[in-house]
Amino acid sequence: MKHAPIPIRTAVAASVAALGLLAGHAGAQSMADVQKAAQARGLSTADLLAAAKTYTPSGMKDEFVIFSSGGHSGQVHVIGVPSMRLIRTIAVFTPEPWQGWGYGVGNDVLAQGNVAGKPNLWGDTHHPALSETNGDYDGEWLFINDKVNSRVAVIDLRDFETKQILKNPLTVSNHGLCVTPNTEYVVESSQYGVPFGWEYATMDKYKETHRGCVIFWKFDRKQGRIVPGESFALELPPYWQDIVDAGKLASDGFIFINSLNTELATGGVQDKKPPFEAGVSRNATDLLHIVDWKKAEAVFRAGGAKEQFGFPVIPIETSIAEGLLYLTPEPRSPHGVDVAPRGDFIVVAGKLDPHVTVYSAEKIKRAIANKTYSGSDDYGIPILEFDAVVEARVEVGLGPLHTQFGSDGYAYTSLFLDSAIARWTLGGEYGKGTPEPDWTLVHKTPVQYNVGHLGAVHGDTVNPLGRYLVSFNKWSVDRFLHPGPLLAQNFQLIDISGQGANMPVIYDMPIGFGEPHYAQIIRADLLKPWSIYPEVGWDPHKQRIDPMAPKKGMERVTREGSTVEVWMTVVRSQFNPDHVKVKQGDTVIWRMTSLERAVDAVHGFAVPGYNIAVSLEPGETVTVEFIADTPGVFPYYCSEFCSALHLEMMGYLMVEPN
Amino acid sequence: MKHAPIPIRTAVAASVAALGLLAGHAGAQSMADVQKAAQARGLSTADLLAAAKTYTPSGMKDEFVIFSSGGHSGQVHVIGVPSMRLIRTIAVFTPEPWQGWGYGVGNDVLAQGNVAGKPNLWGDTHHPALSETNGDYDGEWLFINDKVNSRVAVIDLRDFETKQILKNPLTVSNHGLCVTPNTEYVVESSQYGVPFGWEYATMDKYKETHRGCVIFWKFDRKQGRIVPGESFALELPPYWQDIVDAGKLASDGFIFINSLNTELATGGVQDKKPPFEAGVSRNATDLLHIVDWKKAEAVFRAGGAKEQFGFPVIPIETSIAEGLLYLTPEPRSPHGVDVAPRGDFIVVAGKLDPHVTVYSAEKIKRAIANKTYSGSDDYGIPILEFDAVVEARVEVGLGPLHTQFGSDGYAYTSLFLDSAIARWTLGGEYGKGTPEPDWTLVHKTPVQYNVGHLGAVHGDTVNPLGRYLVSFNKWSVDRFLHPGPLLAQNFQLIDISGQGANMPVIYDMPIGFGEPHYAQIIRADLLKPWSIYPEVGWDPHKQRIDPMAPKKGMERVTREGSTVEVWMTVVRSQFNPDHVKVKQGDTVIWRMTSLERAVDAVHGFAVPGYNIAVSLEPGETVTVEFIADTPGVFPYYCSEFCSALHLEMMGYLMVEPN
Repeated sequence: MKHAPIPIRTAVAASVAALGLLAGHAGAQSMADVQKAAQARGLSTADLLAAAKTYTPSGMKDEFVIFSSGGHSGQVHVIGVPSMRLIRTIAVFTPEPWQGWGYGVGNDVLAQGNVAGKPNLWGDTHHPALSETNGDYDGEWLFINDKVNSRVAVIDLRDFETKQILKNPLTVSNHGLCVTPNTEYVVESSQYGVPFGWEYATMDKYKETHRGCVIFWKFDRKQGRIVPGESFALELPPYWQDIVDAGKLASDGFIFINSLNTELATGGVQDKKPPFEAGVSRNATDLLHIVDWKKAEAVFRAGGAKEQFGFPVIPIETSIAEGLLYLTPEPRSPHGVDVAPRGDFIVVAGKLDPHVTVYSAEKIKRAIANKTYSGSDDYGIPILEFDAVVEARVEVGLGPLHTQFGSDGYAYTSLFLDSAIARWTLGGEYGKGTPEPDWTLVHKTPVQYNVGHLGAVHGDTVNPLGRYLVSFNKWSVDRFLHPGPLLAQNFQLIDISGQGANMPVIYDMPIGFGEPHYAQIIRADLLKPWSIYPEVGWDPHKQRIDPMAPKKGMERVTREGSTVEVWMTVVRSQFNPDHVKVKQGDTVIWRMTSLERAVDAVHGFAVPGYNIAVSLEPGETVTVEFIADTPGVFPYYCSEFCSALHLEMMGYLMVEPN
Repeated sequence: MKHAPIPIRTAVAASVAALGLLAGHAGAQSMADVQKAAQARGLSTADLLAAAKTYTPSGMKDEFVIFSSGGHSGQVHVIGVPSMRLIRTIAVFTPEPWQGWGYGVGNDVLAQGNVAGKPNLWGDTHHPALSETNGDYDGEWLFINDKVNSRVAVIDLRDFETKQILKNPLTVSNHGLCVTPNTEYVVESSQYGVPFGWEYATMDKYKETHRGCVIFWKFDRKQGRIVPGESFALELPPYWQDIVDAGKLASDGFIFINSLNTELATGGVQDKKPPFEAGVSRNATDLLHIVDWKKAEAVFRAGGAKEQFGFPVIPIETSIAEGLLYLTPEPRSPHGVDVAPRGDFIVVAGKLDPHVTVYSAEKIKRAIANKTYSGSDDYGIPILEFDAVVEARVEVGLGPLHTQFGSDGYAYTSLFLDSAIARWTLGGEYGKGTPEPDWTLVHKTPVQYNVGHLGAVHGDTVNPLGRYLVSFNKWSVDRFLHPGPLLAQNFQLIDISGQGANMPVIYDMPIGFGEPHYAQIIRADLLKPWSIYPEVGWDPHKQRIDPMAPKKGMERVTREGSTVEVWMTVVRSQFNPDHVKVKQGDTVIWRMTSLERAVDAVHGFAVPGYNIAVSLEPGETVTVEFIADTPGVFPYYCSEFCSALHLEMMGYLMVEPN
């Protein structure tokens, strides 16, 4: 839908004329002024209405917060709703010097994600998953996965910093991530089939040598860490598992994973074989995976897993024997699997089928109990009979991908090929909330363009709040200035507070800093972030006082052999010490504490020649270690404009040559 | 100024009541709906007016573009005005995987910034400088400096990509950057005093051993590169040079650099000496540097420079003898030096003096001609008599830093301590444009909080356009959600189209992804970016067809000894080849060409285990080289959601172990 300036101008002109008389009534800043300003910029009344719904004046806070994956930027982006302003980027898998991340801060966390001992300093973040209590976001933790190297990160929402990175010991790529309803587990689903353990194999025996998996990473909320020793995996066939969503309420105890490439296509276009794009889409259906994770946990605890590459893996045979894993047909090349708020329905969209397919949790349980199988796959996994588990199919449009839920019985599905968001009605208990009949397409709002995922406020929890939906569009084409051939993506905010066809796009937010995959949207008041660290000398990694943190009055430089320790305090507008002399080849351990207690009084610590950038937030202590291998004079300085004498906040590192 | 909900609500309620009768006239989407929506969110009529001035509906383009330094993010941020939306981040000094920057794209450019052979993979970007023709932006090139490692980068505004990084061979840190009026030179001013050549010295003979400099980097517009062989430097005393601005029109041929620490303070707080913050602010005045660059260029061309560390440097003695360099007193601890549009006035703000000090270009020239010196500094550089060169002093408020110019005779100065933007009148020719008397403070608009630089549209050119000014605030404190203890900065958009006291803040943009230092704002229609690369097989680094670019139908994998070359084409939704087999230890040269010609049809090339991320824009060719040292199976895939079969766009890199 292109913005059409001519009719719009007419509309505003007409209403300005109608309102002209009011100028006198309304005083100095009148609605007539508003309309004049709008007219001058070619805005319609609809545009002004959208502006009134989104414009957020100085000091007014946003009501909701988007935690968005940054896609292959490797980061997480925090965005306010409805203003659609980027409040912060959280460095996760990619070094980021403003936060000091990987430049002196968090280097050890990043190193947890090394592959074969080598740094892989980026990620392809896909599925942010907020921690949940009773199936709803609690605002405490955020998890996010890296598709490219199959890693998972843990972010603490007290300080919005990454605390842990885990590397999948089995498979090389992943796609989905979710949490179980009380964050017992963070669940990671693999993507492309590979030999387990990052090992070598050729493609000719793909079916035998390659595998997929789902990992249940045990989360310890008190420690704020995933505990690998209490985590386990299920071996899966080398289909390409994709999204994972956890059951809740009616489906509590299950997780659902869709998959593509049940054809086991192996490509080979250079050898005149069908390319993956053809081979992977041959079958009419693919296979939805249904995992009984509570049973799986019991099997794991009872010793039913086998150690593979240092990690406990429940073999496919065991999953079959113990009734942990079932399949059922799903529309081919699916991308979305989304559990409805009551846990009673599971919505799957196959992008080559214009319908969403809705499964019933009750029917699935019954089919499992009754062994209502239509057969089994090549690995012997039972396939639940499609007709026995399906509840409804709703034709929504071309290229359906993902589904989110409103507060009132509507579901929303992104349509990649239609470039639209479909609003449709759920049935069952939900049907009472909507004026339209159950299981019916209600409306499609065009989006610009090529929507992938979509996100609604608490839209994948037991308690969706409605109000807003964001369409995460992959292409923007003509929406924004072209900043060279690499265009921004487009997050479009849609007002879903109305019913029926009333769901207008009210804001376009260009995303020119990554290609977000999925995002979750939480009520801002559920977040309880710290504005400063609790005490001076705080170690954010351990979230407690660091007994080694330099203290005021105890600043010094000490030497033991070729190891120099710097004990530095940092406060407006002074580094103490401001001279540090070392010898070439020395190991330098530079400890620093911010003595600040004022909100926003952040200092940076920048050192030339040594690739060091630290962000020191009020109270924070950081330790940087390096070998002083480059001789010379290196003025270190505060890189955050902290005070009128900020430029004077500096010192000299002198490295005496050998 | 906190947002005050109660009076605001009253205001809207009143006008809604007044407008209530209109609902019927205005139809389905009426101004009454607008007001109802505003009222529901607590917006005042003034807020709605600001919304009408800034809200930019889907498909409407921004009129102006901000090129903002990213501060210690090391990047450049591109922001639309008046919508204040981040359109793109340009990777410059810091690797960024969405753009592939440093992960397969531009690795050679980043390596140009190595220090002592080691990567320094971040920057503290300070002063973006758009290329100019006749003293006004021409929209072709952007230059930006890195303070921490004293580097300068060249960005091509056809594709918004960094093409070159240069390391200052003399000093370790820099601060200012500007261009001469026809971009003959990109001028870099050093910051902290250091021994030349990144060499070692202690602090005890600072005056003798340490130095500052200004480098004139010759820019070749046809090549699109700085040519180090035609560049030169002037040796300067080890004061801390800061901002540099080029003269134009009446001051054409000169550049102006302010400085602090003319005290030559050397710190030593750990030895009970005064810290830098005290030592640097002892004197009542510091010294403005005035350089006749056209004369200096002639001296350099005539062989008057001496080679130091491989770079031609004009010694201080030569500068004195040839009349290239003069000083004059300026208010202490200055941070801004800004040349007025006609080049006739130079405005300096000393942050510890409530005045701006205005120098006259004519008076400076006359004082130079007449040798009206009040003496010389310790290095023998003549100091022009203050009273002979000053035109006016205007009291503007506490902590004045930087000045920008409007279209109508107003100047605007940021006040760090007051947290405000001062509007004041220029005299001379400019005086006719303003109703107020010359050289007078007109108004102060409070900003939230602690403004550093400010930027107006073409506000530092010969042709400022007025309309908008942005206050680059360093602290946001209570303006936005606290995303942990590291808060966003706040770019506040101010409407300066009015006169007198009419200059309201109309938008707050959180900057939670860096700490921008300075920014320039250009008319969007002056930019002529490419939407796709001109032809298939385009090498963006050379900006021409790469004869080695893989071609459709010629895809293959070749081997010579232990070197494997991959010739791959990339198009929706296929990599060809999709199997690449190598042996552990092989050198892999992976060439790839995007065959796409559609705008926005971007592909990513992601390889696990090898830290490789490439962005392939339509037509682009990229070559990635690596040693296949980690054995295993690595599914490579397209990381930009390019089509419905995007997930199927993948292949397998198989590295056979030895």
